[in-house]
Parts: sequence; C-alpha cells; structure tokens
Amino acid sequence: MTDELTAVAANRSFGGWHKRFRHRSTVLGCDMVFAAYLPPQAEAGPVPALYWLSGLTCTDENFMQKAGAQKLAAELGIAIIAPDTSPRGPDVPGDPDGAWDFGHGAGFYVNATQEPWAKHYRMHDYVVRELPGLVERTLPVTDRRSVAGHSMGGHGALVCALRNPGRYRAVSAFAPIVNPSQVPWGEKALGRYLGPDRAAWAKWDACALIGDATERLPLLVDQGDGDSFLDTQLRPDALRRAAEAAGHPLILRMQPGYDHSYYFIASFIDDHLRHHAAALKC
Amino acid sequence: MTDELTAVAANRSFGGWHKRFRHRSTVLGCDMVFAAYLPPQAEAGPVPALYWLSGLTCTDENFMQKAGAQKLAAELGIAIIAPDTSPRGPDVPGDPDGAWDFGHGAGFYVNATQEPWAKHYRMHDYVVRELPGLVERTLPVTDRRSVAGHSMGGHGALVCALRNPGRYRAVSAFAPIVNPSQVPWGEKALGRYLGPDRAAWAKWDACALIGDATERLPLLVDQGDGDSFLDTQLRPDALRRAAEAAGHPLILRMQPGYDHSYYFIASFIDDHLRHHAAALKC
Repeated sequence: MTDELTAVAANRSFGGWHKRFRHRSTVLGCDMVFAAYLPPQAEAGPVPALYWLSGLTCTDENFMQKAGAQKLAAELGIAIIAPDTSPRGPDVPGDPDGAWDFGHGAGFYVNATQEPWAKHYRMHDYVVRELPGLVERTLPVTDRRSVAGHSMGGHGALVCALRNPGRYRAVSAFAPIVNPSQVPWGEKALGRYLGPDRAAWAKWDACALIGDATERLPLLVDQGDGDSFLDTQLRPDALRRAAEAAGHPLILRMQPGYDHSYYFIASFIDDHLRHHAAALKC
Repeated sequence: MTDELTAVAANRSFGGWHKRFRHRSTVLGCDMVFAAYLPPQAEAGPVPALYWLSGLTCTDENFMQKAGAQKLAAELGIAIIAPDTSPRGPDVPGDPDGAWDFGHGAGFYVNATQEPWAKHYRMHDYVVRELPGLVERTLPVTDRRSVAGHSMGGHGALVCALRNPGRYRAVSAFAPIVNPSQVPWGEKALGRYLGPDRAAWAKWDACALIGDATERLPLLVDQGDGDSFLDTQLRPDALRRAAEAAGHPLILRMQPGYDHSYYFIASFIDDHLRHHAAALKC
C-alpha cells in the first residue's frame, strides 16, 4: 500500500482479507471509500478482479456484508472491488428534496454534464478508469477485469462494458435498470445529470448502446419475477428485444419468486462468479 | 400459519424462504419479531431447526443478512430460527444510561430476577421454550433442535444447552462470552438482571455449569485470535480449563487473524452447520 490509500478496516475472511480504504478521487473531487476482497491467492501474487457496482442507497459495504461472495471468490482466486455509489461529502450537492433516488448514493455511473452535478458526479470515469488504476497500482490485483452490479449498478455494469470494449473480460447483472431512458428512476437521474435533451441519454442506456456494440461479451442477467420494481423500473424484456434486434448474446434468467433484495443476489452470486472466473481465467 | 404469527417479510433464498414474523410473547410481555430460514425441503415436510442466538445490539436480521448460512442450510435441509436479542418496545425498560451493552439488544439470555427487569427480561425461557413451541406449532419445523450463537449469543447457546439436557442435539458458538461472571459485559448484565449475589450468577455461566453437566454434547467453539474482545470479555481459555477439569468434550479452534465480525462467522459457519446437521441427522 502507498500513501494514496488510507486503511479504514481490515477483516480476515475465508483465508483472505476484506479491506476498506479511503482515498482522494481527482475525478470526483472528493474523498471516497471503497472495499476490496482479496482472496488468499493474492498473497502469492496479483489476481484478476471483479468490480461490483451497487444499487441505489448503497455504499461499498452492502455487497461485502450481504452477498456471500467471498467463499467462492477465495476458492477461485478472484478479487472483488466494491466502490461507493456516488461522490460523497459536505461539498457534494445531493438531491434538493433529500430523496434517496438521486444524488448521494445514486450517481447512476454516468458523467454528469449539467450544473451543479458536473463537478463531482463523474462516476463512470471513476469506476472505469480512476479506481482500477489506483487498485492496480496499490493492491495485488491485475488488469484482468470484469464488472457486475445490481439494479442501478446492474445498469452501470452493462453500460461500462458496452461503452468500453476491451476493458472487461466479462459482465453480468442482477435486476438491472436496462432502459433508464424510459423508467422513472432513470428519467429523474439522467434528466438532471445530463439535461433535458434525451438524445444525450442514449449513451448511458444499455438498450440503446447494445445496437452499436462492437464487442460481444455475453450478458448474464438474473431477474427475480417477484421483484416489486420489475414492471416500473427494470423491464428486462426491453433488453431482450434490444439484444435480439442487435444479435447480441444475452443470457436472461427469470428466477421464480425472487425479489430485489440481497437474498436474491446471494442465491445466484456463485453462478455469476463462475461466469466471471471463466472469462478471467481464474 | 395461524393467527399467532403476523408476517413481516418474506424473501426467496436458495430455493427456500427467509421469513420474518411478529408475535405476542407471553413470557416476555411484549411483541417480538423473529426470522426463520426455511429450506426447500420444508415444502415437503417438517425439518429440524438450528436456533441461532445473536450478540449485543443485534436483532433477528444480522445473522440472516450477513452469515451466508442459507446456501448450505438449503442443501442440508435444516431450518434456522433467529430470535431477537432482548424484549423490545416502549414498555420495556432499557439501559438507564442508554448504553448498548445492557437492556434492549442485550438480554443475555437469562431470566431476570430483579426489578425493573424481571417482568420482561426472560430471554432464556423465551428462546428455550416459548419460541420453539410457537415455531413447531406454526411452521414446518420439527422438535429436533440445536443451538448456536455469537458472543453474547454464544454464551446463550452454551448456557441453554448446559441447563437443558435432552433439549438440543448439538451446540456450537462463535467467540462466546464463556465466563460472564468474570468479565465486564457479564458483570454489568448479571449484576442488574440477577442482583449483586454472585452465587446466583453461576447458573448462567458456562464455565460454572460445565462442571455439573449431565449430558455430554460436544461443544464446538470457534474463536478468532485477532478479536479485540478476546482478553477482556471472551477468554476461551477459561472454558478450556473448565472443560478439562470436568472431562467435558470441547472442540476449541483458535482461528488466526480473525476478528469479532460477521466476516469471521461467515468464514466458518459451514463447519458449524455440518456439525449440527450430523447431530440432527439432516
């Protein structure tokens, strides 16, 4: 570790380490905290990493505490990096009404163009470039990367992969917001971060991006059919139609009775880890 | 389900269900919430149950969200019942100073004899008798029971098993308070719940009870050697000495580098589940 990182916490976990670090983000213009699960293999040398993007209201902690991913990650020798879900701090403007679906905890993994958001809300560049660069300089983690996420973070994972061919070996999502241009959460966030011109939104919408994808990473998506946000915010059928129209590979699994919670994620995270590990050659 | 239980939440989990229920506790004189993990096998018929007793400040939720126990429980066909850690509600007196280590969230699994605690703080009778009775009447769970817990709940598990021969098929603990009569957390709690006469405390102290144990259930105990409470509150060597003196079977595993968190519990919960399942004949 260098002086770029300040240790916040360290817990032994399945023979490896769960660690939390604080650092100064140049891209976001604020201090940020992220978590890293380092499997036992990282003590012998650098290992590939899955970047996990969390959903609305989350921090780096939700996935690490609730997904139950460490056991198989330790077996496979894959690191997991979990960033926060927005810039934070007293200098970072949040939702004017204090709502939970915009601002702090709701960066939507875009680069904002509108004031007052543009100065700090550049989560795309942070999770795609700045954070991996930092991690690969300071932790025993290679540049073999993959990306996954949940809900808003599922949207983030799909968009990060589709916008950055060659950067990730695999991508997957749980209950992603696949078509943010067309649903209330996305309309609110994109309308503020990117402004009212909907043409600018298409660059941050998986259903729009998939038509122009030059890379054909198979998209693995799990979606519970008991998810209370299914019809209003998530609409996986839109992704299915867009993938079919584009001839893009998609494995969309509807999971009967499962909801939007981490109980759902935990139930299928091992399938996702194996999907990523195969591509990362763990 | 009968009208004894009010459903609070239900989440699909590993092919089974995580459910939370509210009910009126006669023993505690207040409403209580508990959680049940019901594995897929419970849809075909009643299954045995592990009762999990949590530590200071916890509710029914900590273990269910953070321990990662459901995957193996679903394979083994074992239910997990997680009660709250104290009586609750505006009518239940808490710590006079608002401390977190006494009162609400800190029932210590004893039957209080002193006022104003004696009216509500009867967690031993609740977790040993009332709750299993309710669960076995209303959920697909048999009377084949085992008990485990963490920290204050590890103390609770050891004491419940040692005080009630024949009631549990197996017992285990993570970082238990093995000798509450001799450590600050225990002295505070037992001194208030049971009064200043330390002779009364021995009936709630695993190190004291083990000498008179008539049943010889092997005690499985995991303890991290990086646990910040190890020397002040936990002192597993006291249990080792008491077990040796009594000729009582004890498997005490010191886990190098592990702390007091759920990252520690998650790392070894599968070993405990297999220990319980073997005794429960799952």
